[in-house]
Amino acid sequence: MVKLVVMYGPPTDAAAFEEYYASTHLPLAAKIENVRQFEASRVVGTPSGEAPPYYRMAEVWFDSHEVLQAALATPEGQATTEDIANFATGGVTIVVSEVD
Amino acid sequence: MVKLVVMYGPPTDAAAFEEYYASTHLPLAAKIENVRQFEASRVVGTPSGEAPPYYRMAEVWFDSHEVLQAALATPEGQATTEDIANFATGGVTIVVSEVD
Repeated sequence: MVKLVVMYGPPTDAAAFEEYYASTHLPLAAKIENVRQFEASRVVGTPSGEAPPYYRMAEVWFDSHEVLQAALATPEGQATTEDIANFATGGVTIVVSEVD
Repeated sequence: MVKLVVMYGPPTDAAAFEEYYASTHLPLAAKIENVRQFEASRVVGTPSGEAPPYYRMAEVWFDSHEVLQAALATPEGQATTEDIANFATGGVTIVVSEVD
């Protein structure tokens, strides 16, 4: 199993981020094919009490790298990827991981 | 559901990290109580081709913030947390998140 991990930096306007994320971005992402599992989460702190570097994370699991790459290459995958720039005012870090 | 997300920076010696992580750290972490789910993953790249900022991620899901805090406060939780300094030569970023 592999996964795409999207980490959003703290946005300039959290309310605007939440509104766009729920009403526009997640519905776009939901159209991506062959997603095995999806989890979105909101970062609320760190054990040390320092400010967290991220505001939100989203993880998308696929069966293999081939399936992940094919899904991102579809019009739905591309539309979702391109939409990130429309609301991620705190920047975004995206990695691909292999689950142990 | 809440989760602890541990993001390890690229270590100075990946083979040594893997050896210690599998033989010592994961067995320590496995003793922590009330873990709902655990997932370890190895970062293999980024969609853009840039070098990823992390080498590994580990996620630990709990039923609530109270359960998470209580688990980390046990001797097993403390031993696991303190063990990170023994092998995480690339540093570590830890956040607590609320799952949507």
